[in-house]
Amino acid sequence: MSLIQPTQIPFDDTRLATARAELLPALRAFLPEDAILARQEEVSPYECDGLSAYRQLPLLVVLPRTVEEVQRILRLCHEREVPVVARGAGTGLSGGALPLCDGIVLSLARFNRILDLNPDARTARVQPGVRNLAITEAASAHGLYYAPDPSSQIACTIGGNVAENSGGVHCLKYGLTVHNVLAVTVVTMAGELVELGSAALDSAGYDLLALYIGSEGMLGVTVEVTVKLMPVPERAQALLAAYDDVEKAGRAVGDIIAAGVIPAGLEMMDGPAIQAAEAFVHAGYPTDAAAILICELDGTNQEVSEQVMRVRELLLASGATEVRTSKDDAERLRFWKGRKAAFPAVGRLSPDYYCMDGTIPRRALPEVLRRTAELSEEYGLRVANVFHAGDGNLHPLILFDANRPGELERTEELGGRLLELCVEVGGTITGEHGVGIEKINQMCVQFSPEELRQFHAVKAAFDSKGLLNPGKGIPTPRRCSEYRQLPDRQHAHSH
Amino acid sequence: MSLIQPTQIPFDDTRLATARAELLPALRAFLPEDAILARQEEVSPYECDGLSAYRQLPLLVVLPRTVEEVQRILRLCHEREVPVVARGAGTGLSGGALPLCDGIVLSLARFNRILDLNPDARTARVQPGVRNLAITEAASAHGLYYAPDPSSQIACTIGGNVAENSGGVHCLKYGLTVHNVLAVTVVTMAGELVELGSAALDSAGYDLLALYIGSEGMLGVTVEVTVKLMPVPERAQALLAAYDDVEKAGRAVGDIIAAGVIPAGLEMMDGPAIQAAEAFVHAGYPTDAAAILICELDGTNQEVSEQVMRVRELLLASGATEVRTSKDDAERLRFWKGRKAAFPAVGRLSPDYYCMDGTIPRRALPEVLRRTAELSEEYGLRVANVFHAGDGNLHPLILFDANRPGELERTEELGGRLLELCVEVGGTITGEHGVGIEKINQMCVQFSPEELRQFHAVKAAFDSKGLLNPGKGIPTPRRCSEYRQLPDRQHAHSH
Repeated sequence: MSLIQPTQIPFDDTRLATARAELLPALRAFLPEDAILARQEEVSPYECDGLSAYRQLPLLVVLPRTVEEVQRILRLCHEREVPVVARGAGTGLSGGALPLCDGIVLSLARFNRILDLNPDARTARVQPGVRNLAITEAASAHGLYYAPDPSSQIACTIGGNVAENSGGVHCLKYGLTVHNVLAVTVVTMAGELVELGSAALDSAGYDLLALYIGSEGMLGVTVEVTVKLMPVPERAQALLAAYDDVEKAGRAVGDIIAAGVIPAGLEMMDGPAIQAAEAFVHAGYPTDAAAILICELDGTNQEVSEQVMRVRELLLASGATEVRTSKDDAERLRFWKGRKAAFPAVGRLSPDYYCMDGTIPRRALPEVLRRTAELSEEYGLRVANVFHAGDGNLHPLILFDANRPGELERTEELGGRLLELCVEVGGTITGEHGVGIEKINQMCVQFSPEELRQFHAVKAAFDSKGLLNPGKGIPTPRRCSEYRQLPDRQHAHSH
Repeated sequence: MSLIQPTQIPFDDTRLATARAELLPALRAFLPEDAILARQEEVSPYECDGLSAYRQLPLLVVLPRTVEEVQRILRLCHEREVPVVARGAGTGLSGGALPLCDGIVLSLARFNRILDLNPDARTARVQPGVRNLAITEAASAHGLYYAPDPSSQIACTIGGNVAENSGGVHCLKYGLTVHNVLAVTVVTMAGELVELGSAALDSAGYDLLALYIGSEGMLGVTVEVTVKLMPVPERAQALLAAYDDVEKAGRAVGDIIAAGVIPAGLEMMDGPAIQAAEAFVHAGYPTDAAAILICELDGTNQEVSEQVMRVRELLLASGATEVRTSKDDAERLRFWKGRKAAFPAVGRLSPDYYCMDGTIPRRALPEVLRRTAELSEEYGLRVANVFHAGDGNLHPLILFDANRPGELERTEELGGRLLELCVEVGGTITGEHGVGIEKINQMCVQFSPEELRQFHAVKAAFDSKGLLNPGKGIPTPRRCSEYRQLPDRQHAHSH
């Protein structure tokens, strides 16, 4: 990860102004005037995504309405070798939609229609700019919903979810985006239309759908997505357990899974996160606890009753100091209230915070929590932990003050060490936020030169000129050899 | 699919004998004598896999013992442009391991060790030549098992399962190979060693693991596999329901899934299959039924009790004429006995049979069963249906007599129409047996020229010279344009 913004190139740089003037007439030949943004004040809303530490104004922004327009834009850019960054709602947290000064931003905002919703087949065919929650809203009339629920689900779009392979609170039971998407229609950088996946269980040929999902806008531009819908469970109930020790809570997570229970959500917050959330939304959390677990169970009435009893026993046996069971939906939602507000709540504690995202094998949870505390002490920076414990997907929040000299750099270094700790215990440097620009250096730690070369070869099979979202996701060999030689990287581990 | 074997090239063809004589000294430079088979009688056991209608003697067979030997073999073949076909147990049903006359067969038979079994992490690290069932046998001491269970699980190897993305009776609940493998170590055709996947939930970079699984030996040679292990469920119970109408049974499958029950297995057999199985193994099946469903439920005692009651109600409501519930494990295994013996049982009915493998969206089951019966009548060939109903994975068995003039050709044509019917209703031409050489023409029906081009580009990203298992899996554009022009293909549908 990197918090230190490289130099921005000004919008009116002469070379860029010339490139802009050359590209505009070609775009105007097939796009209506309102589909092209070319003035600085028009393109400035696109200068960053959710990783707002990084900003860059793009050459131009285009807002096509049809698949054919997307094809023509990409063919033109392919021919003229203009880089393209596709963008959904811009809620991504790793800078995947950060513009390039000499590239266009292709916004899918106008691809916002639900094309078909089939309650019998339990599928929805939607355009990529449809918001995640809008699918569930449309499906709810049929007692169905779309399972992956990233925190940003009110705003983020399904096209962005496909790019990032987004998860959410429910992905422990219901899977990531890749488990809930049946097919995507994609325009390649050369302007060709291909369909990946199908409505059936398995697909002939290479599994390009799985390859494409999570590819961070580097292999193609999504123009249609077919998603699976799930029946809304008959009942959902949540338990909240308090612990006087973070490691005990970490072990309880393993105990629940080992017992064969698959909760709909299994989330953990540590002391600093609990206190921040409680002060912010007054969810009734035990503020003296070192950690809390929130475990939601869903299914039929009888299943849920049985599982609530079992999980309650397991939580008590694991050393919980208190276990509450939600009596009704209002109480269940109160248990979640603090968790859902945790990021902004922690944001109130400190002038700045940095949200990390790594994944570890579940069994390594107690060890990683202990070593996170040690690193926090070593760097003199507070770390609040809020995460999808059931999946081993960590979201440590580093609290810092960018105005204190050196604190930004220390935060960046601590973040890097936390990610490398994930790799060391057999995990990965991303959970659900992607690599983007943020974690591109850590890719050099996780992958060997041969593996990175294989990634680049696959990229070239889709985008021979390397024009789709260049500089994101997969580092060049040169970048990695430079990174590996940095003096402060003696602590790094290679797998 | 194609049952008509192309001309075999004789082993002692002069050109091949020369090529063999040139390659042998180079292999002997780093392989022990017992790792090279070069005489006709030695290589003849490798002339076919489970699709025995196709046979071809390879140039040579090599049986390496170490990863380094595999790397050196592949580097040598890469340099000299010798095609390579990797082979596990040779139980594949689509000819994926069919040798090439001018290529070597690389057998992984000596990679047969379980390297590590970690009951806490519930993973096993195994060599590719380990048999599927051997993993479960080793894990059973810890109350664990490996979930995917293809019919050939006594013999087939995990490396072959990775190549074919194998399923089995339990894949409805526990997924295909891709859902049960965490990581693979692969040697590329250029001899490079890469690791795909990791022990964590999600992986940074493109999902090359999902791309690789099911790639039918065309992207690399697997030298190590890390699999997930599952806890053996507390209890398993099965129901057997009889129907007087095949379509009713098809609809019952949809009803069970719609009720939110996920059976461990949900299998269907039609009249001809029931009668054949009963005559063969005396499982006590109702021989006057038009179809039977076998539904297995597993989990905790209480879960299973509840689900058995619900499924029983659903089966009765769907019009079952009889529903039996297994009273003990002996009865449960008796229910399965006929299903597991169905293929050889049907084989007794007719001199020859041809096992198809296609997948359809579950809701299309009643329609496809009806149209299969119509096509069976049209072609005057009996079709027995035995399949993984819960997944929509069909295995129609066409009964024929190759000695009757024209019957082989009619069988082949009917098989092609059945696969194209799968594509027409939104399904695919494979379920779990792969494309191999068998269904390469049907790939032209399922995919557009742009999509096939994309497959070839991905192949080239792993194997730039096209030396790994050439001629399998993905048809060349030329093959497709020839196939599309065949006079008997007016009935074909393109998606």
